[in-house]
Amino acid sequence: MKQREKKNTLHIIPLGGLEKIGMNMTAFEYGDSIIVVDCGLAFPTEDMPGIDLVIPDTTYLKDNISKLKGFFITHGHEDHIGAIPYVMQDFDVPVYATRLTQAIIEHKLKERGMTRSVKRKQVKYGQTINAGCFRVEFVRTNHSIVDAAALAIFTPVGTIVHSGDFKVDYTPVFGDPIDLQRFAELGKKGVLALMADSTNAIRDGFTMSERSVGRTFETIFSEHKKNRILVATFASNVDRVQQVINTAYQYNRKVVVEGRSMVTIIGLAQELGCISIPKGTLIDIEELKNYPENKTVIITTGSQGESMAALSRMASDMHKKVSIHKGDVVVLSSTPIPGNEKAVSRVINELSEKGAEVIFQDTHVSGHACREDLKLLYSLLKPHFAIPVHGEYRHLQAQQKIALEMGIPEKNTVLMRSGDVLEVTENALKVTGRVQAGSILVDGLGIGDVGNIVLRDRQNLSQHGIMIVVLTLDRARGQVVVGPNIVSRGFVYVRESENLMDEAQKVVEEAVEKCLRRRVTDWGKLKSVIRDSLGDYLWKKMKRDPVILPIIMEI
Amino acid sequence: MKQREKKNTLHIIPLGGLEKIGMNMTAFEYGDSIIVVDCGLAFPTEDMPGIDLVIPDTTYLKDNISKLKGFFITHGHEDHIGAIPYVMQDFDVPVYATRLTQAIIEHKLKERGMTRSVKRKQVKYGQTINAGCFRVEFVRTNHSIVDAAALAIFTPVGTIVHSGDFKVDYTPVFGDPIDLQRFAELGKKGVLALMADSTNAIRDGFTMSERSVGRTFETIFSEHKKNRILVATFASNVDRVQQVINTAYQYNRKVVVEGRSMVTIIGLAQELGCISIPKGTLIDIEELKNYPENKTVIITTGSQGESMAALSRMASDMHKKVSIHKGDVVVLSSTPIPGNEKAVSRVINELSEKGAEVIFQDTHVSGHACREDLKLLYSLLKPHFAIPVHGEYRHLQAQQKIALEMGIPEKNTVLMRSGDVLEVTENALKVTGRVQAGSILVDGLGIGDVGNIVLRDRQNLSQHGIMIVVLTLDRARGQVVVGPNIVSRGFVYVRESENLMDEAQKVVEEAVEKCLRRRVTDWGKLKSVIRDSLGDYLWKKMKRDPVILPIIMEI
Repeated sequence: MKQREKKNTLHIIPLGGLEKIGMNMTAFEYGDSIIVVDCGLAFPTEDMPGIDLVIPDTTYLKDNISKLKGFFITHGHEDHIGAIPYVMQDFDVPVYATRLTQAIIEHKLKERGMTRSVKRKQVKYGQTINAGCFRVEFVRTNHSIVDAAALAIFTPVGTIVHSGDFKVDYTPVFGDPIDLQRFAELGKKGVLALMADSTNAIRDGFTMSERSVGRTFETIFSEHKKNRILVATFASNVDRVQQVINTAYQYNRKVVVEGRSMVTIIGLAQELGCISIPKGTLIDIEELKNYPENKTVIITTGSQGESMAALSRMASDMHKKVSIHKGDVVVLSSTPIPGNEKAVSRVINELSEKGAEVIFQDTHVSGHACREDLKLLYSLLKPHFAIPVHGEYRHLQAQQKIALEMGIPEKNTVLMRSGDVLEVTENALKVTGRVQAGSILVDGLGIGDVGNIVLRDRQNLSQHGIMIVVLTLDRARGQVVVGPNIVSRGFVYVRESENLMDEAQKVVEEAVEKCLRRRVTDWGKLKSVIRDSLGDYLWKKMKRDPVILPIIMEI
Repeated sequence: MKQREKKNTLHIIPLGGLEKIGMNMTAFEYGDSIIVVDCGLAFPTEDMPGIDLVIPDTTYLKDNISKLKGFFITHGHEDHIGAIPYVMQDFDVPVYATRLTQAIIEHKLKERGMTRSVKRKQVKYGQTINAGCFRVEFVRTNHSIVDAAALAIFTPVGTIVHSGDFKVDYTPVFGDPIDLQRFAELGKKGVLALMADSTNAIRDGFTMSERSVGRTFETIFSEHKKNRILVATFASNVDRVQQVINTAYQYNRKVVVEGRSMVTIIGLAQELGCISIPKGTLIDIEELKNYPENKTVIITTGSQGESMAALSRMASDMHKKVSIHKGDVVVLSSTPIPGNEKAVSRVINELSEKGAEVIFQDTHVSGHACREDLKLLYSLLKPHFAIPVHGEYRHLQAQQKIALEMGIPEKNTVLMRSGDVLEVTENALKVTGRVQAGSILVDGLGIGDVGNIVLRDRQNLSQHGIMIVVLTLDRARGQVVVGPNIVSRGFVYVRESENLMDEAQKVVEEAVEKCLRRRVTDWGKLKSVIRDSLGDYLWKKMKRDPVILPIIMEI
């Protein structure tokens, strides 16, 4: 009986992407079928030292592997595709995505020699995929990357529309505007729930068209005919690069694309015809020297202040081919992602000190729908339920408010957390349980072998360093054979703190002797005496609290 | 002859406060006299793990201690006074400042038992201090703290005006507007150089009056009569607190001030009469329970998302007296200082999750002059030279542009770095040398004992942890007595990585044996073999690079 009931309900389970920006992954489960939307990574936050990237915990999928029918990817940004090479080691189902998205995924897999082991199916807008008891249609949207899609997921209880990351652009640079007619049609037939992008739900008004940035480029190029121009933007923003190229062509400038990830994506976009570059406009970076500087444009990565990206290296004279000098005009065609503000400031200062003019006003538009755009989507789809996705809690909440304004009753909206199991019937919406979900840390080749204890150790080590006390003991006689020796790293500069180290040595020696006189032979006890006595001494003397690590060797 | 020449030039030497925001300190030297403007600290950046705060390097002042006449402080913010308890351990000259500034300094010194060892002289607006061959006049300005002053420094070569941090507020909440008449008078008599606040030089227009925030408070209070209201702002913004109190009084609410630093400053302001609190309005936090929630207001610290401040603790249920619940209205009366955006977001999310409505629009005005305000100052003073101060390089550059617009020739402007020695004569301005300047790190009780090597160690430790290899050797026989033992911290969670640790152990054992067979007795060489072999193994196996620390003990 219970099982039968379960068979008739749809479960929506976000496995990532809510509390933590990035790492988007949502499972849809009905009866014996599970499909997954997106498979993204997140970048580590400052409390994760040494971690390279973060992927969602897919334990729930592994536990239900027989139900899994496929992964459906909305677009080619890292926070939607980046975990594929890690996650797909465990699953043998297809990854469905549109053209450019699929090309970027393929490139990622190729770098890791995994192209053969992951099934990939390219999907067209309007095409529908059958996956167990689900059907999934890819609907055209606009975003800051070409070939973005929303998903209409036809389930036994009704149609769920997942917007992916989207904006409404009536005049996109490449391809067609978002397929508003199809959204209207879906709405007319009845949409059970809308899961829409909340990123800009706190912003009033409409998001500007990508083309508006093109007009800014025109102004900049016309006002700086005597200067070399550099434009930094997101590597994956093919349309932005297209607009720089168009303006450069118009002003008779040659274009260099610099930065590994940008070169890759522009290469893929060229192969697929998503970007059109007039013959002779693109030149190799080696050819730069053959042209007057004011006849060149360098399009580059590093607009977020990333210290290893091309722009940062140019700014700090670490780039092999390009360095910034007086007269250069640097256009930052992006806004800082929250958390990157300081790094961006640093790069602007470095560029300014080199004499460059840095321009960052009206040089960027968002790829995400603002409040009025979201209202348009709600009006076209008229969903019964609103399940805001993509954003911090306050963003989800802002979209919930929009849903209420649009007449959806509060009980028909829900704010979820990763791991929540949302039960959706035709009439109701309710979080009924939790599954394992969260972050798996990737450090080098290790996936998940760094956990909270290791992170805490790293944080402690970074605060005041480590003091190691080594001691060789003759257990039988209860005597010290060698030591205690104290070695430190990251604590103080030892050569300038000899007195301190000498005193610390004495403190430890006395503590050890006292123990041995009392015939303590439990090394655990001896270690804790060393830790306490040295710790107390250092705190009293220095108000510092290094990690203290006693190591006892026995002969 | 050389000495005579030197006697006739003024040197301006910023010892901090340019590249690094905060840590303001500028020396003015002429002949046998040196005066210093401001004595601030900076907060550590993310590349300084474990550091509590940063103060300027005063080596130059110590080397010229006989010339030093006094410290002149423009206002009571940490980045202008915070280094006094550290720096004044070395100097025996007076610290000059206005009333509230002096009160805050006194409080700081009292906490450290230093009130007797630092001479302090309270100065009134318009008062002039003789200090060697300088005369210094305190001129009234407005800022986000009461009792801010600009300094007119009368030197043998001419008058230098140092604006301090300032804004133009025609309707300040407490006290009088900036003394524009005196600036005009100084300008009329002739100003050689203006050193003005660049913080907002990239912002167009005028800075709004502090009073405009009061109107927002009115709206918020009138629209939320059924809710408890919490207002978070900077601890030192006495005028902001005054306006919250005024609005609370008007709406018949009781006010609690919470957060140690805010309680301190409001206490000082009350003693000095810089804030006026209607009788019975301020209550103790313990009395909160005696009033209906919608008849109370809590003013608190933590508007920058500081994890230990009162607001963060309330948001995460860690505060002993107050926790946030549905219906609360939280006003963030500040904008995030660059670098704090993520922390502020985190607090907003936590508050939202607890059900609070968070308001942060039109709830703050800046304490710094915008472009048009700066133009006003230039117009009144008509300085011969422009020496922008207070700000990142790009801000200084923005003010330089304003100076050019105001008709000052480029050769009469200069952008300085900390440690530059600027020679100023009646006709020219030139950086002629450098002195030691920069950051001294304070970690616990240690001042300057953590340098680059220690910081680098801490960073390395935080990335991939540490692997310690301990070995007891019998040197005479060239034999291992105990070990090698491997102990790690912050590398991997050892219990789940036993194989790896076993293999690592074998790698080290083999490397050591090989050395000993070859009769290597140079322990330096043995250590580097251990480091290399284990390092290579871990990189190949894990793509990780922990700190490897071999310790050899000898019997």
